Amino acid sequence: MTAPSRAEAEALDRADELAPFRDRVVITDPDLLYMDGNSLGRLPVATPERLRRLVEREWAGDLVSGWDGWIDLPVTVGDVLGATMLGAAPGQVAICDSTSVNFYKLVVGALGARPGRRVIVTDRDNFPTDRYLLESIASRSDVEIRWIQGDPVEGPSLADVVAALDERVALVTLSHVAYRSGALADMRAISAAAHDAGALVLWDLSHAVGAVGCTYKYLNSGPGGPAFLYVREGLQESLDQPLWGWMGQRDQFEMGPTYVPAPGIRRFLVGTPPMLGVAAAEEGIRLAAEAGIHRLRAKGMALTSFLVDLADAWLEPLGFSLASPRDPARRGSHVGLRHDDAWRVCRGAIERARVVPDFRTPDVVRFGPAPLYTRFTEVWDAMDRVRDLVASGALETVAPDRAKVT
Amino acid sequence: MTAPSRAEAEALDRADELAPFRDRVVITDPDLLYMDGNSLGRLPVATPERLRRLVEREWAGDLVSGWDGWIDLPVTVGDVLGATMLGAAPGQVAICDSTSVNFYKLVVGALGARPGRRVIVTDRDNFPTDRYLLESIASRSDVEIRWIQGDPVEGPSLADVVAALDERVALVTLSHVAYRSGALADMRAISAAAHDAGALVLWDLSHAVGAVGCTYKYLNSGPGGPAFLYVREGLQESLDQPLWGWMGQRDQFEMGPTYVPAPGIRRFLVGTPPMLGVAAAEEGIRLAAEAGIHRLRAKGMALTSFLVDLADAWLEPLGFSLASPRDPARRGSHVGLRHDDAWRVCRGAIERARVVPDFRTPDVVRFGPAPLYTRFTEVWDAMDRVRDLVASGALETVAPDRAKVT
Repeated sequence: MTAPSRAEAEALDRADELAPFRDRVVITDPDLLYMDGNSLGRLPVATPERLRRLVEREWAGDLVSGWDGWIDLPVTVGDVLGATMLGAAPGQVAICDSTSVNFYKLVVGALGARPGRRVIVTDRDNFPTDRYLLESIASRSDVEIRWIQGDPVEGPSLADVVAALDERVALVTLSHVAYRSGALADMRAISAAAHDAGALVLWDLSHAVGAVGCTYKYLNSGPGGPAFLYVREGLQESLDQPLWGWMGQRDQFEMGPTYVPAPGIRRFLVGTPPMLGVAAAEEGIRLAAEAGIHRLRAKGMALTSFLVDLADAWLEPLGFSLASPRDPARRGSHVGLRHDDAWRVCRGAIERARVVPDFRTPDVVRFGPAPLYTRFTEVWDAMDRVRDLVASGALETVAPDRAKVT
Repeated sequence: MTAPSRAEAEALDRADELAPFRDRVVITDPDLLYMDGNSLGRLPVATPERLRRLVEREWAGDLVSGWDGWIDLPVTVGDVLGATMLGAAPGQVAICDSTSVNFYKLVVGALGARPGRRVIVTDRDNFPTDRYLLESIASRSDVEIRWIQGDPVEGPSLADVVAALDERVALVTLSHVAYRSGALADMRAISAAAHDAGALVLWDLSHAVGAVGCTYKYLNSGPGGPAFLYVREGLQESLDQPLWGWMGQRDQFEMGPTYVPAPGIRRFLVGTPPMLGVAAAEEGIRLAAEAGIHRLRAKGMALTSFLVDLADAWLEPLGFSLASPRDPARRGSHVGLRHDDAWRVCRGAIERARVVPDFRTPDVVRFGPAPLYTRFTEVWDAMDRVRDLVASGALETVAPDRAKVT
């Protein structure tokens, strides 16, 4: 097949409704082709001023009384995220802790809400932090993990999950978007099947947005920005999360002798919320909300399809193969390409070609063109440069030793 | 007794070796007498520039490769804190998560390290988040909490702890400085007694700095700044903390099938570290380190003793009594004053007298003159204004209803 031309990329950029949003993030070096917004999103233009206000006016000037304005933000920003990105009614989303900690809270809570059921179903290719936390829970209790092995590219199917369900399953937990292949799980059908079997479902939405999830990727909250968690209202009271911290207590400043959980989503808070991170998350979330989840999703599919077309035409002859679902409706907003020398391709792209993908073991180069600010021409140029890198033999000059790649 | 004069306060300020550090924090309103540095410390002058560099240069410009410089900070900043404030050798302190989450990790870890022992000893007046987390652990296991009731002003004594020790005790956990009275526990003697009985010891150092603890009070890291944890090197491998996150994994980017804890203190990390908070914590820690823990401690004792002298002379006749230990060596750097109408005294001080203490249930007004930046004349003026507020009858005009007080 023939590759789309650069003129086609230019035409797609001209027709892109989201194109103006590119000016809402800071781009210091337009020649650097950043394909890793799925790992760390870019800085929104509004964020530095927001942080300045928080730090130099509120913290410095209002001191402890600043908490009057801060203390509700984990929940009010959660509501904005819920309303605009998750389709969740108010009072069901909070911005707090890390994705790992939120995942742990909800898994332990879910086990308690299904007494007598001691099996958790998950996928062997699920994100490490999720798998490790499940292992930890199993290692100190009679909980059993039932591993399903989905297709490495297409991810776990509805049939895979259904085969694992029985009356002992308390919880099914999966990633909505597979961190390596980008495969999209069928959330609606899998949730329905699990619920029919009497189990609860916990989705890790880090590589998507739209349960627990991450704000520093597509929501542009900055390095290590606080995570979010979503718990359906009708379930909140029956989920007894184990991290009983003072921010989740009903009358926090009564400092009473016994923990009584706060009503609603606040019972899932633990310690004092990280306000620099919460403020930065609010700016990122508001920007994504303005762009709109449906437009973001549509452009994400268009960008990754464009990338796949270029990879088919240019990179397949050079030893690459697609490591993500071919159907855009079955993918998140990143694409994995398999290559025998994937680590060197990734290092070479960064060091020699000014293209930033990332590497995922054992042999995948991952490209994440974030729909909020990535152009079709950038995708075209990135694939063109990777083709040059490999076709020219320049790859041979990249050191083969592996160092940290985030 | 007669109160020290304002001239005496001025002389103490002139002789104060730490006086120059006042210029290292931002003070927007010198007339506001801030006695709540023990709740939220002030903004260091260096922090806004540090955050600008992190956000506008590193995040915006370096993007995901910024992690090359960020990823070690939780541990390297922990080392700075350990070396300068805790007397801990490198590799034993990390900056991560909230105090609540760190407390949970180490309690569950400690229980695992003392198999067969199922009792945790703590104090009924310990900080709520600590008590609640212990309750949560007890509620889902056969762990038993053995509550000791120390003197409400002097706090738990060595004898109180010794009386609670036996061969079933896995862990003794106490706050070094009582959050309400400011009483200082005898860390050395209590630790030795617990160790002799075969138990482990976990100190909550939030209201001090010198196990888990907080950086947003005396270490000036900003609202909700990340916490620290300290685990002695010889103990690290035997503490199996339950939050097995990807940052605590040995080869994080291998994303291997099984959790293998990282060597050293890194096994206590969980999710992606909150870099805005870690960077701000570093500035606050460096400033405190420069002032020096011994000079800070000496000035903290002098400031609180000065405050107690003024309260004895002026406030005792107005219905106040000391709710903290009288011996400065037995106190942290805050003083509680009991009053029947404590909540109105606190609101009135803030709203009518421009003095900022805080309120602790049921009847304590808490004054925390942070030694890094608080002047003796500020303490003198604050006590003078509180005296006027109560003596003038102005208190009667403060609304008696209780709202949130942080």
